[in-house]
Amino acid sequence: MIPSASSEPPALGPLLSAIKSPDDVKKLMDIQLPDLAAEIRHSLISSLARTGGHLGPNLGVVELSIALHRVFSTPADKFVFDVAHQGYVHKMLTGRADQIHTIRTYKGLNGFLLRSESPHDAYGAGHAGTALSAALGMAAARDQLKEDSHVVAVAGDAAFTCGPTLEALNNISETTKKFIVVLNDNEWSIDKNVGAIAKYFNALQTHSTYASVRNKAANFVEKHAGKAVRNLAHKVEEGAKNLLFPNVLFEKFGLRYYGPIDGHDLHLLVRTFEHLKTLNEPVLLHIITEKGRGYQPALNNPGKFHGLGAYNIEDGSTSLSGPPTASEIFGRTVTDLAKKDQSIVAITGAMPGGTRLDIFKAEIPERYYDVGIAEEHAALFACGLATRGIKPFLAIYSTFMQRAYDMILHDMALQDLPVRLCMDRGGLSGDDGPTHHGLFDIGYLRHVPGIVFMQPKDENEMVDMLHLMASYEKGPIAIRYPRGPIAGTPISPTRSEIAIGKAEVLAEGSDVALLGLGTMFEMALQTKALLEEKGYSVTLINPRFIKPLDAETITRYAKQCKVLCTFEDHVLHNGFGCGVIELLHDAGVYTPVERIAWPDAFVEHGKPEILRELHGLTPEAAVAKITKHLQTK
Amino acid sequence: MIPSASSEPPALGPLLSAIKSPDDVKKLMDIQLPDLAAEIRHSLISSLARTGGHLGPNLGVVELSIALHRVFSTPADKFVFDVAHQGYVHKMLTGRADQIHTIRTYKGLNGFLLRSESPHDAYGAGHAGTALSAALGMAAARDQLKEDSHVVAVAGDAAFTCGPTLEALNNISETTKKFIVVLNDNEWSIDKNVGAIAKYFNALQTHSTYASVRNKAANFVEKHAGKAVRNLAHKVEEGAKNLLFPNVLFEKFGLRYYGPIDGHDLHLLVRTFEHLKTLNEPVLLHIITEKGRGYQPALNNPGKFHGLGAYNIEDGSTSLSGPPTASEIFGRTVTDLAKKDQSIVAITGAMPGGTRLDIFKAEIPERYYDVGIAEEHAALFACGLATRGIKPFLAIYSTFMQRAYDMILHDMALQDLPVRLCMDRGGLSGDDGPTHHGLFDIGYLRHVPGIVFMQPKDENEMVDMLHLMASYEKGPIAIRYPRGPIAGTPISPTRSEIAIGKAEVLAEGSDVALLGLGTMFEMALQTKALLEEKGYSVTLINPRFIKPLDAETITRYAKQCKVLCTFEDHVLHNGFGCGVIELLHDAGVYTPVERIAWPDAFVEHGKPEILRELHGLTPEAAVAKITKHLQTK
Repeated sequence: MIPSASSEPPALGPLLSAIKSPDDVKKLMDIQLPDLAAEIRHSLISSLARTGGHLGPNLGVVELSIALHRVFSTPADKFVFDVAHQGYVHKMLTGRADQIHTIRTYKGLNGFLLRSESPHDAYGAGHAGTALSAALGMAAARDQLKEDSHVVAVAGDAAFTCGPTLEALNNISETTKKFIVVLNDNEWSIDKNVGAIAKYFNALQTHSTYASVRNKAANFVEKHAGKAVRNLAHKVEEGAKNLLFPNVLFEKFGLRYYGPIDGHDLHLLVRTFEHLKTLNEPVLLHIITEKGRGYQPALNNPGKFHGLGAYNIEDGSTSLSGPPTASEIFGRTVTDLAKKDQSIVAITGAMPGGTRLDIFKAEIPERYYDVGIAEEHAALFACGLATRGIKPFLAIYSTFMQRAYDMILHDMALQDLPVRLCMDRGGLSGDDGPTHHGLFDIGYLRHVPGIVFMQPKDENEMVDMLHLMASYEKGPIAIRYPRGPIAGTPISPTRSEIAIGKAEVLAEGSDVALLGLGTMFEMALQTKALLEEKGYSVTLINPRFIKPLDAETITRYAKQCKVLCTFEDHVLHNGFGCGVIELLHDAGVYTPVERIAWPDAFVEHGKPEILRELHGLTPEAAVAKITKHLQTK
Repeated sequence: MIPSASSEPPALGPLLSAIKSPDDVKKLMDIQLPDLAAEIRHSLISSLARTGGHLGPNLGVVELSIALHRVFSTPADKFVFDVAHQGYVHKMLTGRADQIHTIRTYKGLNGFLLRSESPHDAYGAGHAGTALSAALGMAAARDQLKEDSHVVAVAGDAAFTCGPTLEALNNISETTKKFIVVLNDNEWSIDKNVGAIAKYFNALQTHSTYASVRNKAANFVEKHAGKAVRNLAHKVEEGAKNLLFPNVLFEKFGLRYYGPIDGHDLHLLVRTFEHLKTLNEPVLLHIITEKGRGYQPALNNPGKFHGLGAYNIEDGSTSLSGPPTASEIFGRTVTDLAKKDQSIVAITGAMPGGTRLDIFKAEIPERYYDVGIAEEHAALFACGLATRGIKPFLAIYSTFMQRAYDMILHDMALQDLPVRLCMDRGGLSGDDGPTHHGLFDIGYLRHVPGIVFMQPKDENEMVDMLHLMASYEKGPIAIRYPRGPIAGTPISPTRSEIAIGKAEVLAEGSDVALLGLGTMFEMALQTKALLEEKGYSVTLINPRFIKPLDAETITRYAKQCKVLCTFEDHVLHNGFGCGVIELLHDAGVYTPVERIAWPDAFVEHGKPEILRELHGLTPEAAVAKITKHLQTK
């Protein structure tokens, strides 16, 4: 049975419930730390069973987070967690343990770090690869301010496949002399890591010399653990030097390399950080952790437990949800298309599970490319493929596609290269919050010259659009689709042709024209029903195309009706409705256009139903806006 | 005397004028190649003296380009030149030598590579760091197509500070077994390189072992150069092995490393490529070249001769131009502000000269950061600094800021971090063409929640806005300004306060309201004169703010006048005028808004005057659009 989030929250253990701030972590005896770790794990497993969340990554950093708060002092010292989905333990140690059961729920704790949530959250995140650069900025600020605080960047191994991390590495040694990078190496990002760097880390991990050096050093530190820190300083340094195995890659970048050490050995972590904080040179500490540590279902299936919804504590099982998700339709359809067309290839940036390109990978591995968390490279690589007539389907979440924006303009569109941009999580992402909502993609793509950009109203149309994308060869073509299912429509065996730039008119009326884009078509339909109850005559349009807009259809109904209303899962500015207003204005048609869209602001986390209600994305709100322009019938 | 571009083009040498395609390069005798190189250099120096262009980089790759075309066969084989400003020699060897005098002029050759210009241009570029990824895509396509062609990526050392290049490096060894990267190492990008990787290359270059190995190998190849290639194969391989010096950084990435070798030794280059093309593993060839080779003024001042306008062939001198450029005003003002405010720092991405932060660097080196070509890192680094109350001025060309788009949304705006975004080359860049025009920045920033975004109409206003930026602390604040001067206004000693979100009304009239944004204010002024000649009453507004728009002022004059006209140096979609239409529409004011802006297309290269005329950005075009809505007076 999956526990319900509304029932009594799970009780915290005695040590954890006494932690009101990091000072309390420092007050514990060394011998109590493993118990604290166990209580945190228990709390994570039982809380997230109800709310869902990034269980695996957090179980992996329990000891690391305790050790950091044992040795350093936030908020004066700064921790920057890359992606920050592994920040739950840090939250629990900085006064938020009693709220951990609210994580990812509306008005509850955010699932990532937020500067506005706590002074202990030095930096927010949600996208990968930002930690080293941001932390380096903090270190530079510290140096400018002539302060003596510490800055620690914690990044997973996957972040090292990522451009910004590598750019940051190149700048560390010239920027500051006091900087600690923790490479939290668990061989997993969201899915199994790829690329030369991953192989390299793996080689380091499995090198037998390391194991023995590591164990010797650990024993050394253990033996001396009872003595006062000051007396230990020299010997700990010797011990740490034993840990030191010159790692050429990082040392080429000017960082002193330490490790790899066992990231679940609390005492070793504490002693190592105590040593590292005395150094006057940038260092990288390589720790090995286990994603899902302490919970067998998560260890058995680290991909699933990276991030998931509510689950059964006993066996980690999750309920089967209803209709297939848009991602699943995407993965299945592109795989089927590729079986008929040898020139189709699929590209993901470390998200085969999230994008469901795992279906493609399983069935056509030779035409599947996982480039790691490297959206810029992914887009350019797709451009290179497209120059030779290969048809790349590039599947990246809408919010992560922001990283490839320059490439979409400068490489793809300018050269008319037919790359198929498949933007998953287009629209509100819900529980994940503002770092993951895909609410800006129309804004950043609508002005890209020559791009074709679509959004399907249901599953069948999505399949039809993917078929169109497979055959379209004139330039970049993009589709956005939501997290979860679209309308839940079963896939019919027959396909319909989609004409580029043509909207679908589903009802003709003379008072109001409703344009419901993609997932928001459903709300337009509901609005139509409400308006008809009031006696109005309603036109219902499924626009299908964000670019090119169907100027002819939109203009015709704008002339025929007294008011238009657009519905989109996107912010107002530079959105679909903005395009409609611009189009009509240029055509000299001044019919009022009301818009249902997200405000010009970052939308918080929470269930989509709650957030839509809160921000006026409802049929009732639409009716109120529309009827202002109409005589009462 | 600077030669005039309109006079007779300089004659080509006899060898060069006979080169109609790369086949002709292959027909030459070995002994003729140095003469061809000399003719190419002569032609570059004399042609670019008239048109301007990237002289230094092209003088550095004369031998490399000849060797590539001697050994490989485009268009079947593919060369991908990073940034592609060093592609002039390639153009000359692929049938375009007789047009080289037209480079960067309207309807002449583009200053970069363009797929539409020649089948020998496998990939266009203009932004750095795209070559390895795109070329890797071509190699993957080649493998999918089961072809046997070669793909060669040529990238400067500066490209290796750049995220996409590093992401690509991580993917090469898993993607293909046949791939050649040429690292063209001249220690310069646009300005002197920075960072750990640059240091590393430098250490390699100056290592004495290399010099002797290189010379020995060169001698070896020279000695055997007369024999038939087949017989040489084995010995050449031995020679190449001597050149091999295992370079740990690249070998960690799974590339076989060769070099460094002298990039001006034609025979050595040819023999090395002949060897490399036989290999069945990805390789990196490190060559050392001299930027500006063969032209003393360019050697003396590689920064200036990276890219410049017309110059005097004799001594490389350039005419003094008129008023200071916007970049110069920026560099001077931020330096002056920083002298009074210790918390101001300046950040550039390898462009101290272009952005004129060289002024800051010279006067306040301890608060100056050059992070290399690494816009993502630059933006994140600025965010980190801003978290600590340090005030970063981040100067990046508008078109390159596209790389930092995700960071502006996800890091800067979401966390309200007051980073000062200073977007040089905002608007048409002219001769450089579509890869460099800054015509999309309003489109990608207008929907960023909470951002403040300005454009000054003249130099004084620019200084005032920079003062505002220094004191503004609520979140990101951006300014765009053009290449060259704005209006040529001398800087007055007194400063005016700029109120956020307030436009400046310069004339009040009742027929037409003109909103001239930034550099386009001048055109609005000219339009006003023409309209007044026709007897119309004209309101003239300097909007100052793109976001927040001055809703009150714009709405007031929209109600008062019969038609509005916006002027902006940006594309139509999602631009400033689009924002005005959206604003008025939401306010229920349906006054027609005409817009003078660039079309929804990529604008070619050429002098701004020509391009404005061509695309209807003229006062006359504005008058025609406006008077449609007015009764004849």
